[in-house]
Amino acid sequence: MPATESVELPDFAAGVDGLLPVIAQDHASGRVLMMAWMNPEAWGETLRTGQACYFSRSRRRLWRKGETSGHRQRVVKAQVDCDADCILLQVEQIGAACHEGYASCFFRTVNPDLSIAIEESRLVDPAEVYR
Amino acid sequence: MPATESVELPDFAAGVDGLLPVIAQDHASGRVLMMAWMNPEAWGETLRTGQACYFSRSRRRLWRKGETSGHRQRVVKAQVDCDADCILLQVEQIGAACHEGYASCFFRTVNPDLSIAIEESRLVDPAEVYR
Repeated sequence: MPATESVELPDFAAGVDGLLPVIAQDHASGRVLMMAWMNPEAWGETLRTGQACYFSRSRRRLWRKGETSGHRQRVVKAQVDCDADCILLQVEQIGAACHEGYASCFFRTVNPDLSIAIEESRLVDPAEVYR
Repeated sequence: MPATESVELPDFAAGVDGLLPVIAQDHASGRVLMMAWMNPEAWGETLRTGQACYFSRSRRRLWRKGETSGHRQRVVKAQVDCDADCILLQVEQIGAACHEGYASCFFRTVNPDLSIAIEESRLVDPAEVYR
């Protein structure tokens, strides 16, 4: 039942200091790649260009994903959740999503005994990408 | 290359008011179901019980997912990201993840022209679940 409405979404006023959490998921494999933040400007640029643009909380500026590494994210689909305070991007990831060189930032598993397991290898050497 | 370390993760001090964002993903389908928050107590209970327990930012208390609806989440795997400030849970979802009755909270797509599309039906009637 395709239904279409045109409300103003997402709701940045409900965010954290005006920023909303954004989840990037590989559109083909379904793997969750990373979580970042957007302000309205980053969201607008992302929709306009079709390339993921976030807002860096530490650097306090727009962060065009891949601007240094070349590891860009082409946006295949953008979704919002029920409360319109979280964004989910289905993306085509070029290279590695993680600045540590892993395919996904979620490369560590926490076991019930609190030990940490890393079950994969880096896709790329971060020293080669960010030099 | 399975490597195991036992550091103290995740890093709640890096969170928002001591809370970290948590992504719940269906372990079988890969669908992202919802995003919520955890404090250290919720995280500890989740690992101990194997059932997702969040911290409700609006109600300011622990939120045992499914305590009202019965729509619990059994945790299959818990992961942390590179900065240890975001948690990803692979879960087995009972019923609907979304309080609006949809399988996932991300049931709305935002098109590039800002129109909103809903391409699925509710799994359950929220009025029946939360009466």
